[in-house]
Amino acid sequence: MTASLQHLLAPRSIAIIGASEDFSRISGRPLKFLIDKNYGGAIYPVNPKYPAIAGRPCYPSAAAIPDPVDLAIVVLPAALVVKSLADLATKGIDTAVVFSSGFAEMGGEGARLQAELATAAHALGIRICGPNCLGLINAFDNVMATFSQFADGPTPSGPVGFVTQSGAFGTAIAALARRRDLGLGYFVNTGNESDIGVCEVLHDVISDPRIRVGAGYVEGLKDGERLIEVANRALALGKPLVLTKVGRTESGARAALSHTGSAAGDDKVFSGVTRQFGVVRARNEEHMLDLVEAFSHCGLPQGRGIGIVTQSGGAGVLMADRAEELGLPLPILSAQTTANLRAAIPAFGIAFNPVDITGQFVAEPGLLERSVHLLLADEAIHVGIVWLQLMDAHVEKLLALFSRIKAEASKPFVVCWVAAPAAAIHGLHAMGIPVLRGAEAAIDAVAGLIEYAAARRSWAARTQRTAEQALSLPALSAEGGPLSATEAAGLLASVGVPLVPITLAHSAEEAARIARSFERPAALKLQSPDFRRGAGDDDAIFGLTTDSEVRAAYDELMRSAQARHPGARIAGLAVQPMAPAGLELVIRLQRDSVFGMVVMVGLGGVLFEVLGDAVFRAAPVSAADAADMLNELQGRDLLDGARGSTGVSKAEIASLIANVSRLGSALGSRLLELELNPIIASGATLFAADWRVVLE
Amino acid sequence: MTASLQHLLAPRSIAIIGASEDFSRISGRPLKFLIDKNYGGAIYPVNPKYPAIAGRPCYPSAAAIPDPVDLAIVVLPAALVVKSLADLATKGIDTAVVFSSGFAEMGGEGARLQAELATAAHALGIRICGPNCLGLINAFDNVMATFSQFADGPTPSGPVGFVTQSGAFGTAIAALARRRDLGLGYFVNTGNESDIGVCEVLHDVISDPRIRVGAGYVEGLKDGERLIEVANRALALGKPLVLTKVGRTESGARAALSHTGSAAGDDKVFSGVTRQFGVVRARNEEHMLDLVEAFSHCGLPQGRGIGIVTQSGGAGVLMADRAEELGLPLPILSAQTTANLRAAIPAFGIAFNPVDITGQFVAEPGLLERSVHLLLADEAIHVGIVWLQLMDAHVEKLLALFSRIKAEASKPFVVCWVAAPAAAIHGLHAMGIPVLRGAEAAIDAVAGLIEYAAARRSWAARTQRTAEQALSLPALSAEGGPLSATEAAGLLASVGVPLVPITLAHSAEEAARIARSFERPAALKLQSPDFRRGAGDDDAIFGLTTDSEVRAAYDELMRSAQARHPGARIAGLAVQPMAPAGLELVIRLQRDSVFGMVVMVGLGGVLFEVLGDAVFRAAPVSAADAADMLNELQGRDLLDGARGSTGVSKAEIASLIANVSRLGSALGSRLLELELNPIIASGATLFAADWRVVLE
Repeated sequence: MTASLQHLLAPRSIAIIGASEDFSRISGRPLKFLIDKNYGGAIYPVNPKYPAIAGRPCYPSAAAIPDPVDLAIVVLPAALVVKSLADLATKGIDTAVVFSSGFAEMGGEGARLQAELATAAHALGIRICGPNCLGLINAFDNVMATFSQFADGPTPSGPVGFVTQSGAFGTAIAALARRRDLGLGYFVNTGNESDIGVCEVLHDVISDPRIRVGAGYVEGLKDGERLIEVANRALALGKPLVLTKVGRTESGARAALSHTGSAAGDDKVFSGVTRQFGVVRARNEEHMLDLVEAFSHCGLPQGRGIGIVTQSGGAGVLMADRAEELGLPLPILSAQTTANLRAAIPAFGIAFNPVDITGQFVAEPGLLERSVHLLLADEAIHVGIVWLQLMDAHVEKLLALFSRIKAEASKPFVVCWVAAPAAAIHGLHAMGIPVLRGAEAAIDAVAGLIEYAAARRSWAARTQRTAEQALSLPALSAEGGPLSATEAAGLLASVGVPLVPITLAHSAEEAARIARSFERPAALKLQSPDFRRGAGDDDAIFGLTTDSEVRAAYDELMRSAQARHPGARIAGLAVQPMAPAGLELVIRLQRDSVFGMVVMVGLGGVLFEVLGDAVFRAAPVSAADAADMLNELQGRDLLDGARGSTGVSKAEIASLIANVSRLGSALGSRLLELELNPIIASGATLFAADWRVVLE
Repeated sequence: MTASLQHLLAPRSIAIIGASEDFSRISGRPLKFLIDKNYGGAIYPVNPKYPAIAGRPCYPSAAAIPDPVDLAIVVLPAALVVKSLADLATKGIDTAVVFSSGFAEMGGEGARLQAELATAAHALGIRICGPNCLGLINAFDNVMATFSQFADGPTPSGPVGFVTQSGAFGTAIAALARRRDLGLGYFVNTGNESDIGVCEVLHDVISDPRIRVGAGYVEGLKDGERLIEVANRALALGKPLVLTKVGRTESGARAALSHTGSAAGDDKVFSGVTRQFGVVRARNEEHMLDLVEAFSHCGLPQGRGIGIVTQSGGAGVLMADRAEELGLPLPILSAQTTANLRAAIPAFGIAFNPVDITGQFVAEPGLLERSVHLLLADEAIHVGIVWLQLMDAHVEKLLALFSRIKAEASKPFVVCWVAAPAAAIHGLHAMGIPVLRGAEAAIDAVAGLIEYAAARRSWAARTQRTAEQALSLPALSAEGGPLSATEAAGLLASVGVPLVPITLAHSAEEAARIARSFERPAALKLQSPDFRRGAGDDDAIFGLTTDSEVRAAYDELMRSAQARHPGARIAGLAVQPMAPAGLELVIRLQRDSVFGMVVMVGLGGVLFEVLGDAVFRAAPVSAADAADMLNELQGRDLLDGARGSTGVSKAEIASLIANVSRLGSALGSRLLELELNPIIASGATLFAADWRVVLE
């Protein structure tokens, strides 16, 4: 664990500022929990009203505590919180959990009070968790710095570190985790995050060697860098990070705004960036716990092949459906595996993947053992799923069976046990076997294993790569705003973006002469800082085939420009050959409020404009990352030549995305926006036909 | 209940053919269950080996039973089953459940044996449930004609009738239902369905007045008519029908084929037809039970407005996300409601939808009561969701609170209670309040209520409509195969399909004369039964603007046709004006192996060809049904004028779909396939530019 949050997450002593002797109250509950759950450190209730609480001396102020204090829990009315900080500082306390509500979640006056709290705490060198939070549990060390009703029940420790921005929803998730026999080593609620945020806590939580999986519930992030930092830390440690982020849609983002006051950000950007840095995103609380279940108790698969053994053909079909929906069609087993399985299972079973061994294995337990063994031995299979149901009467027999299967298993596998008895779940966990609750949930969880394993491999490859050369860019005009098409062309060409040639003409005759040099029809485009390209078609004319057409077009564009904007500054008219037909793409760099410079690729036309088919990443990306982006496009089949076309070079496009993204990070805050639209791809050729670069 | 399956579902007496005295065996378990669960009818074990079983006389044959028998349970080895039918017939038994496996699920010999069973049973007038099935439970009358381990536990009756093709998965689902306190009045496994199928059973099960909801698990249907029949029955009774059908994807369908030997059918057709007839489709077992939960305990909403009250803003955001994803964005509350809520809830709560009353309501229960009341009173709200968590310590208080809320509620609502204690679920069920397990599950369930309520309303409107007039169609050529374009045009015009005019020319001169009459460029298309249109572009030339172009094109097409197929029969060349640009659609009639004639609509171009964006219904459909189809297209925004176009008349397109679908049902089995492609829509105008009609 880094030093920074040590006092928050593993305090050796705790003061409770505003402690109450009524253990049913928020101000009484932390003391009760700390005592009941045998916290090993020192506990100092602070409240001038009492000489003692629960037989312990109670202090009139933090300053009056005789011994060192690592963490203060502050349970005062909002108006008194800021004032209490001076007392903490006097005592030398550098970390506080503030339960009190009445801050930013109230808006107006509350927001002002929170800003005051943040400023005061910063000046005094006190780190703040909260305000308006439930606090935290470190179950390893029995740190119960919380008033959450979750602590009313058992809080066994385990390999999962769970950090949540929402207190109520976080409590619900923790309760679900407990029902599923998933031990939470840490449960931390960051509340309003006046100082310490969910990413910082996750960073330190996953650094604890007792933690194997990090899980987070997020409503809004202010600083995307922090997320990338914790994601990289998690990759380096080899500990998966699972996040649920709400505010996926417009309605959701609006609701999130009224809830925490922070906009949910562009959800597609969040999805893209988490994927880029190996964070597994869960769509809701159950899905998150399914993933945590799998990561807590299962090794990582070496490939994408899922093999299934069921006692129900139907469950097998449902899993095959779901796997295909997620882009993981079940591999076909080798002829040898199929023959071996056929010999092993009943005649009315199914020896294909998904393998159906039927209920017969209850009478004949060796059947399950043999078939899982045969399935996992197949080269095409990298991870197994064993589906079961009910079997209340056979728990012990099955546990013995799985103990043998686990001992022999050459590859990771999960158990999907619908309506599993609690004893079965606990017994399987003890063997290091995850138990999923349903057929679709099992596939979703295994897909998470596969996705994370791939991300980890690509991360390992990335870190081995030699440092990239710095870009040498042409000097850019100092003033901000849109670059001229030719200046932008120079910039783009410097990073190897293939462009449809562009030449500036200053007379109709010059335009015609340039156009004659093409073998294709020409396009003329007005170049002027006083006209914004794309606003209309008044500043471009396309498809000019003859000299006289080019000349007439030149005159027409100049006349129209003067008419619309007398005295406009006109640099000339750009003359370009028309691009041949092909598949149209869009690549864009834009600034995201959370993640900074992001790169986007979309398929031009109806998919992009109507369905919003586009994929984002934080810039820069490697060509391999960019290839992943292309594979996430809904219309990706078009790249491979759907609709009878010949397909395009995905490698060329990926390399272009990577180059553009490097330009984005090189220009940094100077760049406001860059768009190549359309890029026209056909076979191995690729050209940007139009572009736009806007500086800050 | 109809007479037909009375003896299966509610037998007054049961014979067990092949009964065993070992109650742990499949052949012993039904007797054990019937005795243990106090079946009220007579039970007759049949087995020549025993004089008595469990103190009851055991008979050497069914014929030897002295009293009438409604139902036989057959637990013999497969090879003996067919032979046993004669004995049943002698006794006059007309219904049998056959547990025995070793039939079609084995393929080959087993399939032959099953065909033999079906033939023999039919000849003897015996209805068969199975073979290879777990049998059934009628929990109202304690009929335990099953060996399923599900019956090992309690089998309380309730308003849900559940019928499953899969035994093992069905058992898992039943176990989950029991955990959720969902009473299954019927649990029926139809197994191989040599005779009685899932739809026939569902039909009779939902006819039982004690059943309020039908639920089905389906792997493959042979006869779509049966499904439409039970769906119509369910609509007439006002009892929702929820189906899970697996085999949604190619992998899944392949797996289903190896499992039950029945192809899953085109999944999009299944989806379209179930939607058309008000069947709610669930994507997996948990989703099915969520829907069943809602339908069992909740009234139907009068509209689509979802109002949410939570104690967690985060849960509210997640629900808002999900609702929007399902096309049900949360309504904005009226200014009055917002003002009332603001006055009612704490200052740090949220008075917008989703409403966040915070955990404060535990201290102040009236808060929840008031806010639910205010929310449901809003005009824009038709159904409410109340989100809760844990609260183990407050179950009684909350139940009392919900009892008051329910008594006052003017509109339906559900409770979403994450990690709800069992006592809470049971208590809320007793009040007629459904309890959902999570935020997303709650929205999915409420979306099901809304979808079904809308289907029921549209069904009611449909049944009130006067009978449609019969179509008067032109006589068609007697021989099968593709119709000529002009003959097809006559047929299509007879049902009011607007066509781009088509005229047959028999000389270049005639073609040029026809083309001159258009104000647009012309297209020439070869008309010959010896060339299949669409195979290539060799038989059509487009965009002809001058007389000489038309003449040259005529000569070229004739020459090319003769060269490719000397002596081909050529009716002439069709001359058509080129259609103006617009949005392209495809409408198709085709024969589905399960549902017969189905009608399809798709958006032309990349959405249809790459993403397969198309919607199906059984023919015929009303214009209102067709409008629903258009709203289910992924690219539906294009119809409203996305991408800067002016939009098209959805009413005109819907009416065209309805007309074409009537043609499909009128032609019935004579028609093999009909396609209008493309149909070009622009504003209120609509023309089919090309078409193809193929007779059987």
